This record gives sequence, C-alpha cells and structure tokens, in this order.
Amino acid sequence: MPKQSKIEIIRHSTSHLLAAAVQQLFSGAKFGIGPVIANGFYYDFDLPRSLKPDDLSKLEKKMRELLKKNLPFEKKELTIEKAFDLFKKLKQPYKVELIKDLKKNKQAKKVTVYQTGDFTDLCRGPHVRSTKELKPDAFKLTRLAGAYWKGDEKNKMLQRIYGVVFKSKKELDQYLAQQTEAEKRDHRKIGKELDLFTFSDLVGPGLPLFTPKGVIIIDQLKKHIEQICAKYGFKKVLTPHLAKIKLYELSGHAKKFSQELFRVTSERKHEMVIRPVLCPHHTQIYASRPRSYRDLPIRYMESEKQYRAEKPGEVGGLNRVYSITIEDGHIFCRIDQIKQEINNLVEIVQGFYKPLGLWGKHWVSLSVRDHQHPEKYIGDEKDWDSCEKILKQISEETNLKAQKKEGEAALYGPKLDFMFQDALGNQIQIPTIQLDFATPKRFGLSYINQDGRSVPPVMIHRAILGSYERFIALLIEHFAGAFPTWLSPVQAQIIPVSQKFNKYAQQVAEQLRQEDIRVELNEDNETLGKKIREGQLQKIPYLLIIGQQEQTADSVAVRDREKGDLGQMKTKKFISQIKEEIKKKN
Amino acid sequence: MPKQSKIEIIRHSTSHLLAAAVQQLFSGAKFGIGPVIANGFYYDFDLPRSLKPDDLSKLEKKMRELLKKNLPFEKKELTIEKAFDLFKKLKQPYKVELIKDLKKNKQAKKVTVYQTGDFTDLCRGPHVRSTKELKPDAFKLTRLAGAYWKGDEKNKMLQRIYGVVFKSKKELDQYLAQQTEAEKRDHRKIGKELDLFTFSDLVGPGLPLFTPKGVIIIDQLKKHIEQICAKYGFKKVLTPHLAKIKLYELSGHAKKFSQELFRVTSERKHEMVIRPVLCPHHTQIYASRPRSYRDLPIRYMESEKQYRAEKPGEVGGLNRVYSITIEDGHIFCRIDQIKQEINNLVEIVQGFYKPLGLWGKHWVSLSVRDHQHPEKYIGDEKDWDSCEKILKQISEETNLKAQKKEGEAALYGPKLDFMFQDALGNQIQIPTIQLDFATPKRFGLSYINQDGRSVPPVMIHRAILGSYERFIALLIEHFAGAFPTWLSPVQAQIIPVSQKFNKYAQQVAEQLRQEDIRVELNEDNETLGKKIREGQLQKIPYLLIIGQQEQTADSVAVRDREKGDLGQMKTKKFISQIKEEIKKKN
Repeated sequence: MPKQSKIEIIRHSTSHLLAAAVQQLFSGAKFGIGPVIANGFYYDFDLPRSLKPDDLSKLEKKMRELLKKNLPFEKKELTIEKAFDLFKKLKQPYKVELIKDLKKNKQAKKVTVYQTGDFTDLCRGPHVRSTKELKPDAFKLTRLAGAYWKGDEKNKMLQRIYGVVFKSKKELDQYLAQQTEAEKRDHRKIGKELDLFTFSDLVGPGLPLFTPKGVIIIDQLKKHIEQICAKYGFKKVLTPHLAKIKLYELSGHAKKFSQELFRVTSERKHEMVIRPVLCPHHTQIYASRPRSYRDLPIRYMESEKQYRAEKPGEVGGLNRVYSITIEDGHIFCRIDQIKQEINNLVEIVQGFYKPLGLWGKHWVSLSVRDHQHPEKYIGDEKDWDSCEKILKQISEETNLKAQKKEGEAALYGPKLDFMFQDALGNQIQIPTIQLDFATPKRFGLSYINQDGRSVPPVMIHRAILGSYERFIALLIEHFAGAFPTWLSPVQAQIIPVSQKFNKYAQQVAEQLRQEDIRVELNEDNETLGKKIREGQLQKIPYLLIIGQQEQTADSVAVRDREKGDLGQMKTKKFISQIKEEIKKKN
Repeated sequence: MPKQSKIEIIRHSTSHLLAAAVQQLFSGAKFGIGPVIANGFYYDFDLPRSLKPDDLSKLEKKMRELLKKNLPFEKKELTIEKAFDLFKKLKQPYKVELIKDLKKNKQAKKVTVYQTGDFTDLCRGPHVRSTKELKPDAFKLTRLAGAYWKGDEKNKMLQRIYGVVFKSKKELDQYLAQQTEAEKRDHRKIGKELDLFTFSDLVGPGLPLFTPKGVIIIDQLKKHIEQICAKYGFKKVLTPHLAKIKLYELSGHAKKFSQELFRVTSERKHEMVIRPVLCPHHTQIYASRPRSYRDLPIRYMESEKQYRAEKPGEVGGLNRVYSITIEDGHIFCRIDQIKQEINNLVEIVQGFYKPLGLWGKHWVSLSVRDHQHPEKYIGDEKDWDSCEKILKQISEETNLKAQKKEGEAALYGPKLDFMFQDALGNQIQIPTIQLDFATPKRFGLSYINQDGRSVPPVMIHRAILGSYERFIALLIEHFAGAFPTWLSPVQAQIIPVSQKFNKYAQQVAEQLRQEDIRVELNEDNETLGKKIREGQLQKIPYLLIIGQQEQTADSVAVRDREKGDLGQMKTKKFISQIKEEIKKKN
C-alpha cells in the first residue's frame, strides 16, 4: 500500500468522524467500509431507516460537534481472535465478516483498530492524532447512494454517504464552485436542453442517437476537418464495420482488445467481428493495387464508427459509448517522407484547434514504449528505436517541446499526443500522431522503390478530432452550449413582434436561407419577452426582432448572444457580417 | 406444375438433345437432371473425364447432326417398377435414385419416359414431336460449371452444361450481343478498372471497401439527394448500427428477418443485434420528446449502413452485400398530411431520376398485401384497408397509373414502388413510398392533437436512391463507367504535351481546383498518345491538352469524352462551361 499523503490521512479520518456521527444519531447502525477516494471519501452503512437528503446537514452538524471535542484517534493492535470477539460484541456483522476474510486468507495474525470517541473501527490507518487536526469548515457531505456490500449484487444494499474534504475552506469553496459550473455545463444536461442527442431504452445504453441539431454540429465538424485534411492530400475512403477475426489477429488487436471485441454470428453460421479500430481496413485498400515509390505518400481519411464492448456499468453520456465515431486517418509513405508528413499533421492540428481557443493552453507528450514490458507491443526492437528517435528529433526541430512519457505508446509504435485544457481546467488528450513500422510488415504491404525492389511502406496513424462523441461532449462543456456561430445548429432566429409582421419575417428568413445561414422563424403566438427568453435558453447566436420600423427600413433589430441588443441593422449588412463570422470560424 | 410455353418446351427438348449428344460422345455417361431455366436449360452429367471449354463446340456439332435426323421424341408410360428395371439396365444410377424417391414419396404409380434416338430419359415432358421442330442455329452451349447432385454438398459433384435457346437465330444473336454488352459493363470489372471499390480476403466477402474515387461518387450522390430532400423539410439524423433485440421484436423485424439478423455478443456478456433496417431507430428519435400537432410533419433522413446476413454463397459484387448503405427516410405526420407528403415524395423521385435519364422509362407498382396470408404482416385489417385506399386514390389523382400487385406490400403497410429500365433493358426497382399505420402504434408513438388528446402519428417510409451499393452498380452498368461530369471522380485531366509545359499545366490545374473542379494532372514521362488513351480508358469527361499554343493563349485544347477533339478554348471559357454542366447535372 503506497504511503498516504497528509490530505488523504485527513480525508480518511473525516470518514471515521462521519461514522462516529452516524453511530450517535442512528442507534443500531452497522458499519461497512469507509475508504478515501478522489477529493474525499465515502462510508457505507446498514441503517434502521433510509437516509433523506436533509440527514446530511444533521450529520455534518454532529460531525462538527464531535470534532470540537478534540477526540484522539486511538490505535490498538489486537490478535485476529480478539478483534473477532470485539466486533461480535459490538454487533458489527460486516466488520466480523472482514475479520473472517482476513483469517481465511491468512494475511495477518494481528489487526489494528482505531477508536474515536465512542466509535471503534477496524482500520489499517494511519490517522490524524486528534480531531483537532481536522477543520470544521473544510469538509462537506455531498450525496447519498446505494451500494451492495462488497460490490456484489447478491449481497445486501447498503447506504453510502459521499463527502469531500480539503485543506482549507477556500479550497473546498473553489471545488464546490467548479462542481456547480461543471454541472451547469454537463453535456448530458445541455445535450437534452438543446436537443442534440438522445438515448433510448429500446436501443440500449452506450448507443447515442443524434437528433437533427446534433447532426448539424457533426456535419460542420466533419466538413471542416475534411477540408483542412484534403489540402494536405488526404482522400476519403469508406469501409464496412465488420471483418473476419483474422484481420485483427494479424494486426494484433484481437489479442489486445479481446474483451472489447463485439463478436458477430448468425443463424446462417456467419462468424465475424465488429471492428474495434479502422486501421486494418485501410491497409486493405492500400493492398488492393500495386504501388510505386512515385504513388507515395498515399493518405486516407474516414469519419466512421467503430465499436468497443466497454464494461456495461461504465458507459454513460457521450464520453463512454459502444459506438465511437472516429475521425481517423492513415498515411502510407517512404521513410524519407516521414518528417514532411508529420510536420503537415502538426500544422493540421494547430489549424483546427486555434480557432476553437484550445491551442496555446496545450502540451505535447512523446509517448514511448514501456521498456520493461516488450510483450505489450508488436514489431521489431530496432524499428521501435528508429521510430522513437525520429519522433524525438521532429519534436525538437519543430519546437513542440514534447515531454517523454514511458509506457504511453500505441500497440505498434510511439506517438505524439496533444493535451488540451478545457474551460473547466480539465486536461483532455485528443490529437495523436503515431509512427508505425510494424503494421505494414504484418500485412505484407509493399511498394516498388526507385531500385525496382519491393519494400514495405511506413504507416502514420493520425487523429485530429478523435471521437466525435467525446469531442462534442468537450465542445458542449467548453462552450456551455453556446457554440461559435459556424457550429451553432441555429445561427439566427427571427422573432416578429406580432403576427402582423409574419410575412416580412418569412421574407427575411428566406433571404438568410438563400445565403446558407441556418435560420429559424418563431411565429408562436407568445409574448415578445417569452420568445426572446426561449431563444436565449437555446443559446442562439443572433435573435432578429422584427416590427414596423424594421419592415419599413429593410432591417432587423439584432440581439447578440454575448453583447445583447445591437440595435437596428440593414438586413444585408447583418447577412454580410454573419457570413464573415461563419467563414472565419471564430 | 404450370403449363409450359412453346419456347420452354423447345428449351427442354434441346436439353434432351444435348444429353443424346453426350451419350454418343462420352461412353458410360451417367445422367442427372436437365431442366429449363431463364433463356435456356442446363443438364448435369457424371462423365468419365472433365469437360474442357472446346468440348462445347464438339457437342453443339453433334447436337446439330442429331437434330437434322428429325428424331422423334417418343413418349412411353411405364409402371414405377418397369421404369426402375429399365434404368437399372441402362446403368443410370441417378435416374434409378429419382425413381426410388418417387416410389418412397408415393407420388405416382406410373412415370413417363421419352426416347430421342438412342437416348432415353425419365421425364414428365411435354416435348416437341421431333427434332424437326428445333432450329439448328437458335441454340448455343454457353458454359460449364460444377454442381452437387441434388444440390447437396455431401453428394458427388457433377458437370453441368448450360445452354441458351431462342425462337430464332436473330433472337439468339440479340441475346448474345446483350450478354457481351452486359459483360463489358459489369460493375465488378469496371469498378476495378476505374478503382472505385475493392474487396479483401482478410475483411471477407460481401463487405466492399470504397476507395477514394468511389467515395467521391457516393458523396456526390449523398449531397445531391440530401439537398433535394432538405428542400422538402427532411432533416438528417445519425443513429448507431446496434440495438437490443427487443427493438426488432417490437417492430416485427426479428421474426421476419430472423435468419438475416447478425447477433452480437462479447466476453463481457453483451447481447445485441446489428440493425437489419433503420426505421426502428428513427421511431426512437421521434419518441425522445413530446410532440404536438403543430410539430408535424417531422421528417428524418439518414444515409447509413444496415447489415443483413445474406446466404454466404449468394453475396457478390455490389448487388448482394452484407453491408448495405441505405438512403433511408421517415415522415411522421397527421392523417390529413399524408397526401401532401406523398405528392412531395413523388416530386423528389422525379427530380432525382429525370437528370439520370431514367424517368419516363418507368412504371409504378401499387404493392398491396397478400389477402390469403394475413400472418405475414403486422397491424390492423382496418388500417390496411385505409392505407391501400389512400395510396390508390393518390395514384389516380397524380396520374401515376400504378399497377396493383398483390402480395408485394411491406411488413407494415402497402407501398408505391417505382420500376426503372437501365441501359441494358433490365428492370430495376428502387424508390419506394410506404404507408404505415402499424409501427407508430407498436412503439407507442403519439402527439397531442388539436383537441388535446394523445393520438398516434402516421409513418411514411421512403427510399429514393435505395442502397448506395446497388445504385452504384446500376450507375456503373447504365453509363458503362462514363459517369455524367457531376458524378465523375475526375472531371478533367490535364496533359502537357511535354515536360516543358508542366509549370503552365500546374497553373491551369490550380485554376480549376479553385473552382472546385476535380482535376488531375498527368505529368508522367509518356507519349501524348499513350496519356490520351489512358485518360480515355479512365472515362474522364475532359482531357485538356497543353502545349506552346495553349500556353501563349491562356487556353487548353479540349478533348471531350463523347464528341472528341473540340479544339483550343480559353481556360476561363472551359471553366464556365464545365461549371454550368456540373450545376445542371446533365
């Protein structure tokens, strides 16, 4: 067990403090376990009644009372037998069971218990010396949940209380404020409000269905990334989601992703798998014709789905799904072309992330292999050395300042990973550039070089945007749903002040539509105020209010999502301004 | 058994004539069966040696010899026992086995045999009276194949000879010419030559991989159909390929397509299916929000893959695949909106097929249910009656002249199917408009009507282009690879007459690229003649030859795929002409 940090010891001690409070308020409480987790702790209890949310403040109050008593954490070492008798006497069946387990596994002859006031717990420690070291205003009980004893659904469901603990009130407040902000920005919440995607019980979890507004965002991103990549010679291919298992046995993925593989059968005795990655399919397009050194580099891109059998309990929202729409690309080139290609890819990454405000707050990882575990990778030792050397050199020459991270390489080669920070300060890894000498050899890919000999090409795997699902979750949370105009499903909404102006409003809508602006018309029979509020809730960049004045002057009254009321503007002028903004992708 | 037509009797009698010829040329030949098929017949033989292609002409010669002898087809009726003895004596084990089968199944007490010259066959007939009625120049043996006795791979492999037979030499010649043309236009052959798609042994059969040029065609079609449909209010959605089986149990597809369903499992105990159709996913997007009568019609479209476990022996080319990219769409509307929506759909079909030259040579089927077999469908009898009545009425009002076809309805409702004729005269069914009262009820879909009551919407299923795979196969064969300019992967190729003009050629290429024209530059160090021939073989609409004259005059020498050499033309003029052609989609 690694040594615990000071704050972890404080968190763990606070969990005992909670248990002590529970013991005082709930006669007959039985105690499960209460470990440290990120930012705090939880404790599982078997209680005479179900907890209600307002129990949490009562418990917090009791914890502060106990804390002020400066109760010591008294440690005692007991033989297993004595400990057994003690918790039997205390009528703590879960602790008794834990002691039995320890005995059965012969892990220890002695155990330690800690006493805090009237509360005694079976615990390895360490703890603070006294509740004096805990701060009454630096912890908070955050939520209730149900949890099976030992995580096994055959066991009884216990009541879990979560708490967070920090070094100071200031840190706690910061954390709570960030949590509130994160909840406000939660992509699942905003995705529902803005009608971007949905889930269905009949389709199943982990399988998002993108609604019309969500598809607009996907299509805009797709178009944008494809345009950038096309300039650097990438050509679109389209490949099926199924393949024989043999394809992945050859690539090495069958072994590496065995648990994540979806296997496909039929009454007609078909046997296939759903692809967990796209690269093997692209090797097969390369392999479909003879290639010469003059044909290289050949660059394929494809934004399509791959599927991975994630653990059922772990799928949720767009961040962990079974159906992953991957923005994937592969370059097949000669060794002397690697540098130019990787430089191009760095330019593509920069070109894509700068307008989104993510470039600059980033760092690059040079992810190399874990030298202690060569069995985790495919390919020759010598090729790995060359690849790692090439990437290091490029990183130095292009001033990427990549930080070497051992053990972070891909199955087939080292890579450059780009790490960004979103508006909440979370670190997110998306773009990746991976150098691969191994896969082309495994698939027997070749080209005829200048000397007329058949030699394998080098493969470079690249993802710019990563998975559309994760990327959209990121964008929603980064922008809190207020997408830049070029990505907004609705770019402008027209609101006539009364039904008298519906006809003019329709004309303006048609004018905008002709210029490929995504416009909506709100002709509902509601008050102007309500319509404006609805438009704002939908985070529409521009609301165009239309009344007598506007109709007379061929104008619209513009309400900007950020800047508020901009006043009256000629419709033509508004169109040229918004078109310019869309073009610049600001 | 239905009564045979005159030509079928001739075809069947020619099959006996072949058997008679085989008996003369191959001592010890054993005879399988020799039935009539489309355009001709086949006969299966067990022979002392393997047939070679030039055996076919020898057999034809022998058949003509026998034919000229005016041999009668003599019919005899025998008891099963006598027939058994006869074929036992003739050492014809396959015929003996057939007689045993007849006896076992107690199908008949007597059988008929036909004698032609020295050849005696067990056969129900009827036949021509004599070979005098057969024409020596109206048949041809076309090919050899292996075929298991009784189609069972546990039995012996026999040698099958195929033949075609027509009423006259003229008809035969027409058929053979059409076959030659069909072979020239075969989409598998042209697809390879033009590098549009490929298959991989590692990925497996039935799973085409579209290469960059093929994807250009798919993308152009997709953009075109989406633009047309968007004008009629269709909005794109994107849904996953997997779902719980429950989704299809509810829709009725699980039962209907049980054999075609791909089932999905994982080591982590997932159990799902790959969707065989898209409609149930779209119902779930509809169901994701409350809907009001003012929200309808809601129209979704999606061009995505579905998968069907076709019989492994039957997949081939693009016409029968496991991975079907379907151009699908669904309308949810009120009953009073059905007519307008279907009228729109007919307009969309017309708008899409007219420029392709397919509209006009078409007919429409009003595909209704098989009244004898209600168990093949879902939904109420009454709803079916209403739907069929509505479609009939619309067909009459819009002058579609739909022909009623019983038993051709979809699982959930009647439909209008559009039948086209391709350049080879083949009839092809693609667009379909299907009226469905049943599915929304099964999924509990609803909207709040004007009276505040919750009622189910009507669903209209529509496909305009059908499956992209089949449609591309059709287009390749229809145009023999010479796609209209708007669909051509390469719209213009620039050919400098010598390397001296490469720089100017690059400038012209860049000029075209700026105008979104798909241009290629052939700088290969080959003769002009060879480069032109290559460009022609690639069916590129325009080859732009560049030399001193063209460079001096800011021009290109245009070679049109159809019209040949058009002479020198200002580059700007060429650009505006080709852009106009692309825009018009001629």
